[in-house]
Amino acid sequence: MEELHNIRIVPLGGFGEIGRNMMVIEIFDEIIVIDAGVLFPSSDMPGVDFVISDISYLIQNQDRVKAILLTHGHEDHIGALPYVLSELNVPVYSSRLTNGLINVKLREHGLLQQCVLNIVEPNVPFMIGKIEIEFFRVCHSIPDSMGIAIQTPAGAIVHTGDFKIDHTPIDGYKTDFATLSRLAADGVLILFADSTYAEIDGYTPSESTIQGPIDLNIAEAQGRVIVATFASLISRMQIVLDSAHKHNRKVAVVGKSMRNNLKMAIKMGYLHAEPEIIVSLKQAIKLPGSKIILLATGTQGEPTSALVRMSRDDHKEISIVPGDTVILSSSPIPGNESLVAKTIDDLLRLGATVFSSRNANVHVHGHAAREELKLLLNIVRPKFFIPVHGEYRHLVANAELAQTVGLTPDNILILENGYVADINSKQASITDYIPLEPVFISGQKAWQDSDFQLQSRNRISKSGLVAISITLQSQTADFLSAPNIVAYGFPELNEVEDLVEKTSQVVHFALENHTGSVLDWYNIKEDVTRLVTEMLYKETRKRPVVLVLVQPVD
Amino acid sequence: MEELHNIRIVPLGGFGEIGRNMMVIEIFDEIIVIDAGVLFPSSDMPGVDFVISDISYLIQNQDRVKAILLTHGHEDHIGALPYVLSELNVPVYSSRLTNGLINVKLREHGLLQQCVLNIVEPNVPFMIGKIEIEFFRVCHSIPDSMGIAIQTPAGAIVHTGDFKIDHTPIDGYKTDFATLSRLAADGVLILFADSTYAEIDGYTPSESTIQGPIDLNIAEAQGRVIVATFASLISRMQIVLDSAHKHNRKVAVVGKSMRNNLKMAIKMGYLHAEPEIIVSLKQAIKLPGSKIILLATGTQGEPTSALVRMSRDDHKEISIVPGDTVILSSSPIPGNESLVAKTIDDLLRLGATVFSSRNANVHVHGHAAREELKLLLNIVRPKFFIPVHGEYRHLVANAELAQTVGLTPDNILILENGYVADINSKQASITDYIPLEPVFISGQKAWQDSDFQLQSRNRISKSGLVAISITLQSQTADFLSAPNIVAYGFPELNEVEDLVEKTSQVVHFALENHTGSVLDWYNIKEDVTRLVTEMLYKETRKRPVVLVLVQPVD
Repeated sequence: MEELHNIRIVPLGGFGEIGRNMMVIEIFDEIIVIDAGVLFPSSDMPGVDFVISDISYLIQNQDRVKAILLTHGHEDHIGALPYVLSELNVPVYSSRLTNGLINVKLREHGLLQQCVLNIVEPNVPFMIGKIEIEFFRVCHSIPDSMGIAIQTPAGAIVHTGDFKIDHTPIDGYKTDFATLSRLAADGVLILFADSTYAEIDGYTPSESTIQGPIDLNIAEAQGRVIVATFASLISRMQIVLDSAHKHNRKVAVVGKSMRNNLKMAIKMGYLHAEPEIIVSLKQAIKLPGSKIILLATGTQGEPTSALVRMSRDDHKEISIVPGDTVILSSSPIPGNESLVAKTIDDLLRLGATVFSSRNANVHVHGHAAREELKLLLNIVRPKFFIPVHGEYRHLVANAELAQTVGLTPDNILILENGYVADINSKQASITDYIPLEPVFISGQKAWQDSDFQLQSRNRISKSGLVAISITLQSQTADFLSAPNIVAYGFPELNEVEDLVEKTSQVVHFALENHTGSVLDWYNIKEDVTRLVTEMLYKETRKRPVVLVLVQPVD
Repeated sequence: MEELHNIRIVPLGGFGEIGRNMMVIEIFDEIIVIDAGVLFPSSDMPGVDFVISDISYLIQNQDRVKAILLTHGHEDHIGALPYVLSELNVPVYSSRLTNGLINVKLREHGLLQQCVLNIVEPNVPFMIGKIEIEFFRVCHSIPDSMGIAIQTPAGAIVHTGDFKIDHTPIDGYKTDFATLSRLAADGVLILFADSTYAEIDGYTPSESTIQGPIDLNIAEAQGRVIVATFASLISRMQIVLDSAHKHNRKVAVVGKSMRNNLKMAIKMGYLHAEPEIIVSLKQAIKLPGSKIILLATGTQGEPTSALVRMSRDDHKEISIVPGDTVILSSSPIPGNESLVAKTIDDLLRLGATVFSSRNANVHVHGHAAREELKLLLNIVRPKFFIPVHGEYRHLVANAELAQTVGLTPDNILILENGYVADINSKQASITDYIPLEPVFISGQKAWQDSDFQLQSRNRISKSGLVAISITLQSQTADFLSAPNIVAYGFPELNEVEDLVEKTSQVVHFALENHTGSVLDWYNIKEDVTRLVTEMLYKETRKRPVVLVLVQPVD
């Protein structure tokens, strides 16, 4: 007899985006992890470079974790791999390009030697323990993107990864309908589908539709052309290289990550260019502007990127001049809108002509819109549907779509990060919740915010800080010196009349109860903090952070 | 003989948006100010409520400032009035509704008695000194919006204010083509036009186009309906009131600003509703959900707004339940996208059905798109064109439009805030620059950031802070106590091995050069700050703010 619940699903994303960065699938006793990516911090996480999932659950069950399968090579799917593998050294399976990208990453972290990395070809099934896995091609904004099929006794589990349907992709590899249809014919138990664009009507246009407009912008440019795009958007580089060839321009790459990706993509055969078309930046600078295209990153307004430095006129080698054409072949990731807008403003101020998705047809997205998602559902015809890869509203939109094509609400699960679903051939239900504490990465440091450091920082950033140091005789708690009062980011202290004096008085008042007895620094700190905070609020309607440092002197 | 340059133009906006919040026009010896609005802070201005223009130039020339003309009653056009009038008490001219709104505002600031407020009817010219002014109607997302025509010997100056062309506005008042045509026939020297939507192709849809979809959503709702919109969007309230009447629902307003605006709009005749249709929130709560519509603010995800409290399930009177329908009749102001998205996610989690401009046709904008702007230019046929109201890229887009309809580049000025243009009947040129220092408003306090307090706050928010207090003998600079070291928002201090100890060592080392001589607190502070900062960077790759407090003891 089949067990009642033999498949367990746990999305282990960091926060916000659900299931994108890490999805856990347990079949019988084996745990398979899909993706190990990073999330980019929101504006209330100052100083955080990125966020990764809390993998305590995997560590607790490490004997059962058999593999990490990677759908594609974007940071939000592979970026956490070094952190995960250093805690949990399990074999990794990925396509060829993805493998190339994680090789670079793991080498940087000094982990390459100890890791087991397997290259998987699409449609070549392989076993992990008792479980058969098959990768199949999907279109996305990086080559070699894969969906994953996992066979279980109750039917296949199909995961789309990030995908779109592109009938005319630049690299020629289409989303594999044949495999999806074959899997459907044999019976699909669960479908996980990308929900990023589930709110967007219609179809996402093909990568080919922007080839013409980008080529026209390059053809019409009189001077230098700078194309900014994502470092991993290999097909966009192909469009630029083809256009450069056609219009007799050389291409130089500004920025290390993009240069490395271009080299690797050419070497591995994902990018085709005659060798003489690519020149170094040094060589490019010597050519007339009408003979150059520069490829650069910086489409998200990242302050240290080449494009942003150019826009601020502080790039070492490149100064934007009237006659330059800048093509931003990208769109802002939510949260970056203002930075991108500022970059465009600054480029225009320097006299450049700027084309972006705001005013030209120079970018398409890599995720399926509503009609594509309906097509997927109608091809795969799963028993259960779990929308993933999106924030809550995107999952809801995808779930609603699934109902319109005929799935019953009971067979659709909206599963937030940390919620556990148990599924068998007959039913699916949410049965448990694992509390997750996201892990923040700042530089080389990984930390969890159990002591609310981010809250502290945000509070200072809103209202500033007042630091007070007090030197007291340790036996009598008598003042040995006037309190030293310093503000940071709180201009009121020195602007509001007598505020320094009033603060000093409050400190003295707070100490009155304490003098004469042995120094009780904990309560002194508490009292001074409370009374000064109250007084400052009364005087300024602000609540700066009050930091009290007590110095006992014998 | 006409003087070479007899008209001077100075946009005095705060930052970013150009000319929207305040525009200065000087004709002969008279200075006319158009609008006195606020700007909303960007994310790198933590703790700032809003930003107003630097009006030093007006104060320096206060004898010549004759009037402030207000185009319409939105905060970004009237919000700074209390601050400006308290420095510079000049007569204000505005339409009837705008006058009602500034009355409320000035009363709150205790300034109403001392101010001279004039109500201006459209198409009734009036004199300010030697200058004739005429207001004329334009459509925008608040009633009684006005364009302004100023007569000069060299032709009229026409300012559109914020505007769109709406052939079927809900309130029946259309953009006044007749006046624009008459002004054009007599000759327009300068046209200032709203550039907010100069990047958007086509026409902005009419307010009427959303009446049907909003009514349908209300008709189909089984339970309670909550419509969230801007407190000043009176025509949107009319749509809701009409729909409530049709579907036999009562309307209650949640939130003070919206309730006040609704009352005033009804009283002044801008809003039409049978009295019994509007009920108090208390009454509404007693009715079945199918009989209620709640009007609320909070469309920008403002943390203290009614809608956001409901979405977090911590509103005192209203709990969102499955069956509720929420209509967000609005779109996010740039910068608020994430907050709005989070609010929608949270409402969905509570089981509400949510309609917003993401998935339904429930909002239109109040600004002219490209075809409307071309029509305006072709009706007005100005000699000179100055695009205003937008960030730099919007002005560039509007300037390019003007070229496509036949203006020569020499007759188009892109005039950033603080730049001065001198214009006569023959030519227009940028002749000067006035440095502007925006004024930040936090609570009741107005301040300029000459000492970079915001930079300080942002630095702490990214990397945290380490405060060190040192008690020293004032004659010998000997330590009287171990340094007290406290971190805030810098978890590394207590997590990295020996870091507190290392910091203490560095403090001792820094003091070595100073012991034995009279306490030189300035240099001690400098040395300790520098050496500790360097050490912390070496150990953690972070640069927290290091705050040193020296306590001299005799």
